[in-house]
Amino acid sequence: MTTNFSSKYSANAEGMKASEIRELLKLTSKPGMISLAGGLPDPAMFPVDVIRELAVDVINNHSASALQYGSTEGVPALREIIAKKFHDNKVGPEQIFMSTGSQEGLDILGKVFIDPGDKIVVSAPTYLGAITAFKAYRAKFVTIEADDYGMNIEILEERLRAIYAKGDVVKFVYTIPNFHNPNGSTMSLKRRKKIVKLAEEYDLLIVEDDPYAQLRYTGEQLPRLHDLIPERTIYMSTFSKIMAPAMRLGWNVVPEEIYSKMIICKQSIDLCSSPLNQYLALKYLEGGHLEPHIERIRKVYGNKRKVMLESIEEYFPMGSHWTKPEGGMFLWATLDHRINTRKMFPRALENNVAYVIGGAFYPNGGGENTMRLNFSFSAPEIVREGIKRLGNVIEQELELMATPMPEWAELNFP
Amino acid sequence: MTTNFSSKYSANAEGMKASEIRELLKLTSKPGMISLAGGLPDPAMFPVDVIRELAVDVINNHSASALQYGSTEGVPALREIIAKKFHDNKVGPEQIFMSTGSQEGLDILGKVFIDPGDKIVVSAPTYLGAITAFKAYRAKFVTIEADDYGMNIEILEERLRAIYAKGDVVKFVYTIPNFHNPNGSTMSLKRRKKIVKLAEEYDLLIVEDDPYAQLRYTGEQLPRLHDLIPERTIYMSTFSKIMAPAMRLGWNVVPEEIYSKMIICKQSIDLCSSPLNQYLALKYLEGGHLEPHIERIRKVYGNKRKVMLESIEEYFPMGSHWTKPEGGMFLWATLDHRINTRKMFPRALENNVAYVIGGAFYPNGGGENTMRLNFSFSAPEIVREGIKRLGNVIEQELELMATPMPEWAELNFP
Repeated sequence: MTTNFSSKYSANAEGMKASEIRELLKLTSKPGMISLAGGLPDPAMFPVDVIRELAVDVINNHSASALQYGSTEGVPALREIIAKKFHDNKVGPEQIFMSTGSQEGLDILGKVFIDPGDKIVVSAPTYLGAITAFKAYRAKFVTIEADDYGMNIEILEERLRAIYAKGDVVKFVYTIPNFHNPNGSTMSLKRRKKIVKLAEEYDLLIVEDDPYAQLRYTGEQLPRLHDLIPERTIYMSTFSKIMAPAMRLGWNVVPEEIYSKMIICKQSIDLCSSPLNQYLALKYLEGGHLEPHIERIRKVYGNKRKVMLESIEEYFPMGSHWTKPEGGMFLWATLDHRINTRKMFPRALENNVAYVIGGAFYPNGGGENTMRLNFSFSAPEIVREGIKRLGNVIEQELELMATPMPEWAELNFP
Repeated sequence: MTTNFSSKYSANAEGMKASEIRELLKLTSKPGMISLAGGLPDPAMFPVDVIRELAVDVINNHSASALQYGSTEGVPALREIIAKKFHDNKVGPEQIFMSTGSQEGLDILGKVFIDPGDKIVVSAPTYLGAITAFKAYRAKFVTIEADDYGMNIEILEERLRAIYAKGDVVKFVYTIPNFHNPNGSTMSLKRRKKIVKLAEEYDLLIVEDDPYAQLRYTGEQLPRLHDLIPERTIYMSTFSKIMAPAMRLGWNVVPEEIYSKMIICKQSIDLCSSPLNQYLALKYLEGGHLEPHIERIRKVYGNKRKVMLESIEEYFPMGSHWTKPEGGMFLWATLDHRINTRKMFPRALENNVAYVIGGAFYPNGGGENTMRLNFSFSAPEIVREGIKRLGNVIEQELELMATPMPEWAELNFP
């Protein structure tokens, strides 16, 4: 008898599709390719020597706890130092739990809050991992257009009014206020304050995803949504960008009311996040290794950002627009409205340069003429060469689209 | 305005309850307490020196990959060596994926296969983490009584016949054939073969959870269900018991038909399991560190098992029954039918000894006179003392229950 297990999939699983982007990214590993597509930190920046020393220390001095199972909430000393270093002790460790990367935090959110068809608010574009996490629970995405200053709050207000007028609710509003992935924007203070007002008005739960908080290269730090309205905000951040992605360690600051439900949920997913990696993160913070490392990556990524902005200015054709990110790892380009970056993608690959098709970040479609460009991974001269190639590809695309007049038209001209 | 976020929980989250056991375990950390309740490996057995050396090697020589994000499937070289070392290359790496502990494998199973109300088959008792994982998707548990030789296959056949006669299906059959947690049993070869027949007959997907495979202290190794019927079996195992729990690394061998769906699902949960920990596991296997470590823990745990069996024989009152596990970490005791181990628990704590209440492992209730006892964690003399105390507690409980004759009855006796 042949097996027929796929007939047994859950309704949620039926809807899980392979990410188009990840399939495309597989094409970008051929030699000579410059990929501005990935979302990776520069491995040359990993604090390798520090992590090696910490590993020896942790294994020598804490093996009984660091190699054992740990509590679901996470290592208490780590949650304490996170409260202190990143939250000025305005929250206590009892409000913080560690997750296996921020991604697990998103999965827990989905599992705890989303029934099929439930509405959640996201910007368009928004983070691909959030789309994947929430789609897995069949959320209905209410997409709010984002521009250079984050989510358009007037549109948000309008949509909320319409939804609540019908007696409907949204489960949460998912935001990335700083150095947005993918669009590189930073939400203005005015918009932050307005979101706070809307949260009060509509009893909203705000999710503030803030993985790049420490990676600011220019401009002034703005208050977090969590600073403005802690009782309504789940704040999420990660060690991926300030230490190393392989730690698979995120932290989540959660209103008391929902903390224990999220812990019970995490327990069902993976019992606990690696205590070994948690001890490494703890010693990293305790040892004062964070601050010099951040200084170093700010300098290096800040320069790469500058190089990317200058090369785009030089090589992208008229009619292109791009964000000027104050931090993070990504820049967002919006091209001439006739260009479809999905259709253009094979030509880019032929020219040995890759980007992420912007449309992938729109859960309900849209953004056909947009692309995400990463500046953290490659060396500055590679960033420059990549943008040069991409500028050429866009020029070619525009030339091909400028429909030549047919021959008979010429004949009929005076 | 006060918040009311709990009104926004998903229907799945509504059903997530804090584990009674985990709450009770918190009571067992007071000084002087002997806990036979936990499910932990003995930290004295962790291969600390080896892990330290491997950490230095991995960070020195593989930092660019080992500290970066990795593929969702897991590090290819690790999946290759797992295929070779644990599966004689009868499966290829393309059928194996790494999960964040076996627990994440269970969560993925639940997410991919279970819609609310769907039937899955488990033994009673069964692994608590599996109950939690599957309950989170509101599975309906079809519980099959387990004895000293695993799941009762006659009952299984009967139940399947009844379910399929009504046109209903079961999504999968979850089994722990070796050194069952909690009941310590090993499924007999006859029963294994019978499960294979039933799987063919009813188009069943079998989940073989095998975390203790390498921890056999006595008796002969039996073929895995996955050896007998690979095309219908998801095989799961873990580095928790053969290296260290903090690795948070399980591996899953999955039929081709459903592999990519499980990968897409894992991607939505945590993107990838820690590449750092995966490299540690890879070097552990490559370096030949597994074999001497297993030899060492077999000797030590085997002795603790022996001590527990001898002390139970000595201290437990008549009318008690217990399994004689051939491996693993747990032994299962069934007491006089009048004893309720949940009610007896406070008295055990007063006497400075703890166990896990057997009823916790029955998703649909039952097992009131049973308990799980762990022999891997504590030193042999502690195991012996713990069993002695527990024997006393049980004796006391029996004495209290032996209703004394009322005074007038004595008077009327000849």
